[in-house]
Amino acid sequence: MAKELSLAGVLPPIPTPFDAGGDVDGQALLENLEYWNAFPLCGYVVLGTNGEAALMDSAEKVHVLQIAREGIPEGRLLIAGTGCQSTRETISMTAHAARCGVDAALVLPPSYFRAQMTREALQRHYHAVADAAEIPLLIYNMPACTGLDLDLECIAGIASHARVVGIKDSGGDTAKLGALRARLGDKFAVLAGSAGFFLPALAVGAVGGVLALANIAPAQCLEIERRFRAGDVAGAADVQRRMIPANAAVTSRWSVAGLKAAMDMLGLQGGAVRPPLVPLGVQERGELESVLIRAGILSSPRRAR
Amino acid sequence: MAKELSLAGVLPPIPTPFDAGGDVDGQALLENLEYWNAFPLCGYVVLGTNGEAALMDSAEKVHVLQIAREGIPEGRLLIAGTGCQSTRETISMTAHAARCGVDAALVLPPSYFRAQMTREALQRHYHAVADAAEIPLLIYNMPACTGLDLDLECIAGIASHARVVGIKDSGGDTAKLGALRARLGDKFAVLAGSAGFFLPALAVGAVGGVLALANIAPAQCLEIERRFRAGDVAGAADVQRRMIPANAAVTSRWSVAGLKAAMDMLGLQGGAVRPPLVPLGVQERGELESVLIRAGILSSPRRAR
Amino acid sequence: MAKELSLAGVLPPIPTPFDAGGDVDGQALLENLEYWNAFPLCGYVVLGTNGEAALMDSAEKVHVLQIAREGIPEGRLLIAGTGCQSTRETISMTAHAARCGVDAALVLPPSYFRAQMTREALQRHYHAVADAAEIPLLIYNMPACTGLDLDLECIAGIASHARVVGIKDSGGDTAKLGALRARLGDKFAVLAGSAGFFLPALAVGAVGGVLALANIAPAQCLEIERRFRAGDVAGAADVQRRMIPANAAVTSRWSVAGLKAAMDMLGLQGGAVRPPLVPLGVQERGELESVLIRAGILSSPRRAR
Amino acid sequence: MAKELSLAGVLPPIPTPFDAGGDVDGQALLENLEYWNAFPLCGYVVLGTNGEAALMDSAEKVHVLQIAREGIPEGRLLIAGTGCQSTRETISMTAHAARCGVDAALVLPPSYFRAQMTREALQRHYHAVADAAEIPLLIYNMPACTGLDLDLECIAGIASHARVVGIKDSGGDTAKLGALRARLGDKFAVLAGSAGFFLPALAVGAVGGVLALANIAPAQCLEIERRFRAGDVAGAADVQRRMIPANAAVTSRWSVAGLKAAMDMLGLQGGAVRPPLVPLGVQERGELESVLIRAGILSSPRRAR
Repeated sequence: MAKELSLAGVLPPIPTPFDAGGDVDGQALLENLEYWNAFPLCGYVVLGTNGEAALMDSAEKVHVLQIAREGIPEGRLLIAGTGCQSTRETISMTAHAARCGVDAALVLPPSYFRAQMTREALQRHYHAVADAAEIPLLIYNMPACTGLDLDLECIAGIASHARVVGIKDSGGDTAKLGALRARLGDKFAVLAGSAGFFLPALAVGAVGGVLALANIAPAQCLEIERRFRAGDVAGAADVQRRMIPANAAVTSRWSVAGLKAAMDMLGLQGGAVRPPLVPLGVQERGELESVLIRAGILSSPRRAR
Repeated sequence: MAKELSLAGVLPPIPTPFDAGGDVDGQALLENLEYWNAFPLCGYVVLGTNGEAALMDSAEKVHVLQIAREGIPEGRLLIAGTGCQSTRETISMTAHAARCGVDAALVLPPSYFRAQMTREALQRHYHAVADAAEIPLLIYNMPACTGLDLDLECIAGIASHARVVGIKDSGGDTAKLGALRARLGDKFAVLAGSAGFFLPALAVGAVGGVLALANIAPAQCLEIERRFRAGDVAGAADVQRRMIPANAAVTSRWSVAGLKAAMDMLGLQGGAVRPPLVPLGVQERGELESVLIRAGILSSPRRAR
Repeated sequence: MAKELSLAGVLPPIPTPFDAGGDVDGQALLENLEYWNAFPLCGYVVLGTNGEAALMDSAEKVHVLQIAREGIPEGRLLIAGTGCQSTRETISMTAHAARCGVDAALVLPPSYFRAQMTREALQRHYHAVADAAEIPLLIYNMPACTGLDLDLECIAGIASHARVVGIKDSGGDTAKLGALRARLGDKFAVLAGSAGFFLPALAVGAVGGVLALANIAPAQCLEIERRFRAGDVAGAADVQRRMIPANAAVTSRWSVAGLKAAMDMLGLQGGAVRPPLVPLGVQERGELESVLIRAGILSSPRRAR
Repeated sequence: MAKELSLAGVLPPIPTPFDAGGDVDGQALLENLEYWNAFPLCGYVVLGTNGEAALMDSAEKVHVLQIAREGIPEGRLLIAGTGCQSTRETISMTAHAARCGVDAALVLPPSYFRAQMTREALQRHYHAVADAAEIPLLIYNMPACTGLDLDLECIAGIASHARVVGIKDSGGDTAKLGALRARLGDKFAVLAGSAGFFLPALAVGAVGGVLALANIAPAQCLEIERRFRAGDVAGAADVQRRMIPANAAVTSRWSVAGLKAAMDMLGLQGGAVRPPLVPLGVQERGELESVLIRAGILSSPRRAR
């Protein structure tokens, strides 16, 4: 069953808006979804790194999933981050997600006891979660945040479970993406985890991407894929290369704070990040604005805010 | 006020026992405390790394604190790990701890967004927690689990808050411990975070240690300190060196699973670890037993279990 | 002047054969070159990582360059690794290379004092070498061996010198390769440093690759490029993916010892590695053989040797 | 035989002075030695990290050893760094050192092919060097420069050779130093590799230290050892803690450039570093001066130079 989910295309890992008091702002989330729904995106990832899931409690997470389900139309996937440090809480969160109508769970590996997270330990964890789950699972490899970089053997071991249908890999190692495709075949969905290497990933066999940049530049991300599928690799590469600095600004450099600031600049509902994340200062906002303008994402200088 | 807490001595960071169903076993915790209470320990750290706090939910944590408070006599410190990924949840957990009668909070730095955890971000986080807290705070530097190694400047910045009274540093860099003592004076308590470098840490000015090994070898840990204070450094070094392999076995090598297995071997209530942690296999238990016997912690070979 | 070197295509970084006494075996080198010359390779890199340059002295290096120059026909590039730990020795070795008729120098960054190798220090070093050089320079980014990963700003700073005409980057970060192409334009040659990500690199604008795998699978490496240039990305990806495990075997997994063993299996002059490198054991050779057969590089099982 | 070398005490790893043309300045080296000879130092390490050996060629190294031998009186050890990337060159350099009258060789592990430097490969390398050597060997663990941190098992394996008599470990892991002493006994000399953890290292059983700081603060380094041996650990700790910032300035922070600048300030022959090392700028010299004054190493502000 699970293997039939169609993950080809572009999925933004969407931020969670917070209101002035620091609580989840469901209305703002719905407004953002309405904007994104105008683009032919494959679906959405909710409660990922950019969703600040690491900074939210369980009840808030369920609340966000309910709102997202409401704002996402038929035919678009709703994928939810459900990975927690303990196996039992991951199972519980995955069950909550299924009850909220989520199509698949994106499961970050536990990493606090990283020295103990051997291949065997990780496989046990993922298989226990998969055994208990009622929805398909995607592995979420995110070494910049977890300090763990799942290797080919580890991923292949986890993927031996029928309910594990793919991976979002943010590590940027396109040789590994190609090796995954060669080893696990086209039934296992390989998704680029960052727009910086979207085209290279497509070139070696990824079916799509979960791209933070797609929150602020959905058209450009879709254009990379469209041109690639049409055989125009040179054209795709032009867009790809133009997007790299903007992508770096909202990922490695300023992370969620950069992404939310960029959304504000574009008229979307970005808003505050949760501490310990720190909002961009005035100078950083100026730099970000320049990056977005140079990339063609923001059309003209904004007034001082 | 806060600065008057007396942190000199040995504090075991105690494990959380779980019952057959995987839930917190309060009775087992009380039995362990009864055993440890017979030794002149300075106090206890609850809900640290060895407490598997990373694998527990908030309600369970409060439950454990209530039980621990009950089992810890007057005059012994109860220190609780309260660090969470978000500032708001860390504040909330610290308030819960204060209400449970905890003497001080041990605060792990948030590390999911590690690339964004600049000195400024960490200082803001710790100061926000300290501003809201009703009990003193200790910094908990644990690079092996967080992937963040707080440096001298960062720690000094955080320690500028009156309610931040010390640090448990598990990084093993004794030069940094000496530098902290020189920079922050003897009002700021420096605690060795692992028994592997307890004597070296005392030699450069640490006042005590939060030592996983003290769960299974309290007498030996106390003996290191006693001999050191009596001026018998050579004698202290003899015990210190004998303890190093045993300490490695229950920390870096097998972590909590090793510690709990060792407790079982000694007749204490160790029990199961929570997945994704994996219990020791038969061969590993054999190796651990040998290590404990060689260290003089376990008196004779145990029968097959 | 320098910028006119045509670096498009495939360049194997060739091993240095040693004879039974452990000395350079010039005849074996010439035999290998004769084999490779039958393929439309752009040229050769001599004295790179696979050339075991790190294990050779200056006189040996000059000797190897003289032999290589003799065995490489007109119209094929001879590129030589000339990076040493000191600026003065790098200048000297680059001058030797120029006198041997080398077309360009591939310069590894000094890394012993890595904590001191700031962008400024590295730029000074490269510019001093470039100022003194009579041949164009290529930067050689090789984090797996140097522990230094030159970032975009650092590379752009070094590339501001007219004599710095390109980079071989073995780090595998294809987003960085795309960013380099966007930032520095098509006059600056970006070369993939490993066959594992050759196609992804071409897709974002690399002009070619310095590929260890091209020593044992020149036809396949050229095929990836040919299909890519012909617009057949899917076909290129098929070959690319088939090559990844073989490439890993002769690079990250077994390094030069694996590459030389593979050459022996193919009837080329591989031979011994220099200690401290350790030759493959019997079992490892068996595994390597299987990998090569599965990749279609070796046609049939070899007899026991 | 070898095991009888007495390594107890303080050994400065001395810098190599260069003249205005960038060549070795033997006279300056002799002047420095004359200054240091007035202190009861155990001996000297020549051609270590601070000797900029990584930036010198073989002939220069032999030249420096000859001069050092001349300037070092009877009864003081002359230890020479002889580690090179290849086993054969390490053997050759060790033989040269023996011919120059060096008492022991300090052998850095080869690290260019670090992924291949397994315990087995390193043991083979060290044993091959030891088999060929006519003088005792010391292992030189220097992870900050080599990117390799030799662990307990690896060191024990290497130390099984009779000619391997000790280790200089700069990693700062005092638990490992204690474990080495426990495992290998007091016939194997454990030397602290940096003054930042000299007292902690002595406390767990190190016999002495190879301390960059001893070049500029020999009296203070000796005082730490003297007080420790006299049972005055608190007094030793006072000096130890006062030295930590000064030690950091001439090691991790500014490395050899800092050490040489400090020597200039003290009237010793520091002079230029070899590129790619970069000399301290005006502001950095000011900061260094303040650090040295606060540590009591420099008695009063110097005029602008």
